[in-house]
Amino acid sequence: MAQAITPPRGMRDFLPAEKATRERALGIIRRSYTAHGFDEIETPVMEDIERLHSGLGGDNEKLSFSVMKRALSKSDLEEAAEFEAPEFLADLGLRFDLTVPLARFYASHRGELPSVFRAIQIAPVWRAERPQKGRYRQFVQCDIDIIGEPGQLAEAEIITATLATLDELGLAGCTIRINDRRLLTAMLDVFGFAPAEHPQVLITVDKLDKVGQDGVVAELRERAVTPAAVDALDAFFHRITTQEFNPFGVRAITKALPAGVDPELIAELAALAEVVDKAYLQFDPFLVRGMGYYTGTIFEIAHPDFSFSLGGGGRYDGMIGRFLGTDVAACGFSIGFERIVDLLQADAVGAPDALLLLHDASATPAQLVGLKTQLIASGTRVRLEKRTKNTKAQLDRAAAGGFTSFAFVGPDTHAEADLEVKAI
Amino acid sequence: MAQAITPPRGMRDFLPAEKATRERALGIIRRSYTAHGFDEIETPVMEDIERLHSGLGGDNEKLSFSVMKRALSKSDLEEAAEFEAPEFLADLGLRFDLTVPLARFYASHRGELPSVFRAIQIAPVWRAERPQKGRYRQFVQCDIDIIGEPGQLAEAEIITATLATLDELGLAGCTIRINDRRLLTAMLDVFGFAPAEHPQVLITVDKLDKVGQDGVVAELRERAVTPAAVDALDAFFHRITTQEFNPFGVRAITKALPAGVDPELIAELAALAEVVDKAYLQFDPFLVRGMGYYTGTIFEIAHPDFSFSLGGGGRYDGMIGRFLGTDVAACGFSIGFERIVDLLQADAVGAPDALLLLHDASATPAQLVGLKTQLIASGTRVRLEKRTKNTKAQLDRAAAGGFTSFAFVGPDTHAEADLEVKAI
Repeated sequence: MAQAITPPRGMRDFLPAEKATRERALGIIRRSYTAHGFDEIETPVMEDIERLHSGLGGDNEKLSFSVMKRALSKSDLEEAAEFEAPEFLADLGLRFDLTVPLARFYASHRGELPSVFRAIQIAPVWRAERPQKGRYRQFVQCDIDIIGEPGQLAEAEIITATLATLDELGLAGCTIRINDRRLLTAMLDVFGFAPAEHPQVLITVDKLDKVGQDGVVAELRERAVTPAAVDALDAFFHRITTQEFNPFGVRAITKALPAGVDPELIAELAALAEVVDKAYLQFDPFLVRGMGYYTGTIFEIAHPDFSFSLGGGGRYDGMIGRFLGTDVAACGFSIGFERIVDLLQADAVGAPDALLLLHDASATPAQLVGLKTQLIASGTRVRLEKRTKNTKAQLDRAAAGGFTSFAFVGPDTHAEADLEVKAI
Repeated sequence: MAQAITPPRGMRDFLPAEKATRERALGIIRRSYTAHGFDEIETPVMEDIERLHSGLGGDNEKLSFSVMKRALSKSDLEEAAEFEAPEFLADLGLRFDLTVPLARFYASHRGELPSVFRAIQIAPVWRAERPQKGRYRQFVQCDIDIIGEPGQLAEAEIITATLATLDELGLAGCTIRINDRRLLTAMLDVFGFAPAEHPQVLITVDKLDKVGQDGVVAELRERAVTPAAVDALDAFFHRITTQEFNPFGVRAITKALPAGVDPELIAELAALAEVVDKAYLQFDPFLVRGMGYYTGTIFEIAHPDFSFSLGGGGRYDGMIGRFLGTDVAACGFSIGFERIVDLLQADAVGAPDALLLLHDASATPAQLVGLKTQLIASGTRVRLEKRTKNTKAQLDRAAAGGFTSFAFVGPDTHAEADLEVKAI
């Protein structure tokens, strides 16, 4: 009896053409980040469940798939039911990002790593979200992180390496929207929001791209936050437009913020323009980045053709300490691989020389495998196919699979020299 | 407070040097199999739990990690406890091999694939086994499969491609131990085992490498199988030694089997020597391969330096039909990647040109990033490091990480031409 044959909900199979595009893109990313002095590492897909639910993953923690590493007994079930604690049944969970595993990895292996460690992680993560267009339950993240460098050199290297990688991928025209969590906090202080109100205000401000300035103000009026501060934000919204924030530098940043924000913080962020080509940087005072662990600079990749971000990151100096016991500076950037690879699929990609050998029943396996082996030895990709009645359809399909030429194999074709190779 | 920082039990972190070796080996495997006309595909790490427990995975089904795709309610727990059915709580499971997902994939996408489909799968699998040396709970499998080719051309292409790949990996001296499930069955018939006894007899015979001929006979005497058949097997064991099975061909195979086995089956297996260089083939009448789904040729990679197999596979014509509803011929080969990569780690591997730039506090971030960008543009891998007191130790560590040269960056070093590059 035939069984259900679709992949699990929100997860995908990749057919040969898609898989080849993905692997080519991953190869470009790997080579580019490696050239920039980063080293690739790998961690298991699972972590202990307490580690995944230690508060570092924000809302993503709620989306983690739980894994049972042993058979459960009836008494396990009864105990779990009694305490209404299903999570008790699971010991492990699938990672929902690559940052929590990196922090755990660094704490575990610090002695074996350089004092400033530049990590590449290219790997799948899982989130039990409601699937929708462009959002999957299994997807690949490409992260780079610099651990142990408190200075702005970390931000500069990370942004430079990411821009170079996007360029290698053929995604011209990307810019980096940039902000600093400390500027964001200072701005909310100036408006008059109490420190305890900041987290919920930031959640609302983070929706600016979706609901607009009026939507943000309306939502804040409904929340129980200081009304005078909301008025101040509203007035500020009416004063500025993001177009004014360029070119990136002290003047533009100062202009884009309410009066009263510490000039030292502004000067520090503006100093990035001395290191990274400022043409790529755009200050955005309302860039929030959802995760609670950011402590300084935050950034997102913007592309003029897309309303969504192609990746993001920032400085998170407090996080490693949660595993290590002592704080270590850290700064990272994550590329949104699934979105980027969707953009690449439209492009034609050059394939290596590939030859289809069409044969009939008169050719013996020994003859076919012998020919194939000769051709592979001279650097060609080779596929054997029995010739079908509709040879044209067969050739079209091979061309779609990256095959560039073909030849017929008859009973007398024994060597490479006997083949009459034609372009498809 | 610092938390536990080790990976989950039986799973591994890969540090930069190990990860680089793994990725290089995977790149070689991918390129070699692609040259042989195979196409890489990917499936999600999870499958529906009923699919994983449909009887096609043999003992491995018991080792699958279960995954909960939703939050569980108290009533879920109570119901599960009542029926003593913990598996009811899980909807998904992590794959324990790549063959069950391939069969599901093929059934789902058959219309989009060539009539003879050559698949590459390179991906992790998970088994909740007791961890021990060389056995992990997460490990990578490298499989190739040909689906839709009933003839021996499939075996020939798969074995040829695998031998070529082992050669590319630098593992010279591998041979293929080969048998046919139908010959095995015929041999048991000749000895006098009843068909119903075959499965348990094969489980015991499969231990031949570990317990020896006397061990096998002793275990069979304890099992409730036909005593006269065990006597016949014992007598046969005393007649043969595996050394007699070479060179591979009809004569050697006939000699290695008890009289009475169908000569047609023998001739069919021996025909492989017309296609694959017979120097690589060694007939092994007691090769069993654990999985129940094999229907014809079965094979394993042997290497003179190792007592364990480096991979294996065979023909499994009945399996795809379990998902598709109609039977489709299939034949596959799986390389034991974790064992192979352990063998490679001893080898020195050539690294690309890589330059360490040592700087002190006098160098500005702009200067350092500028230099780095120039050097990367000219094809060099570059890493920035602040010079430490023990420069020698720093250089040794860089050399271990694949860096081949270094240069100091002072306040006046602004261009590539200002650098005095030295070998490490």
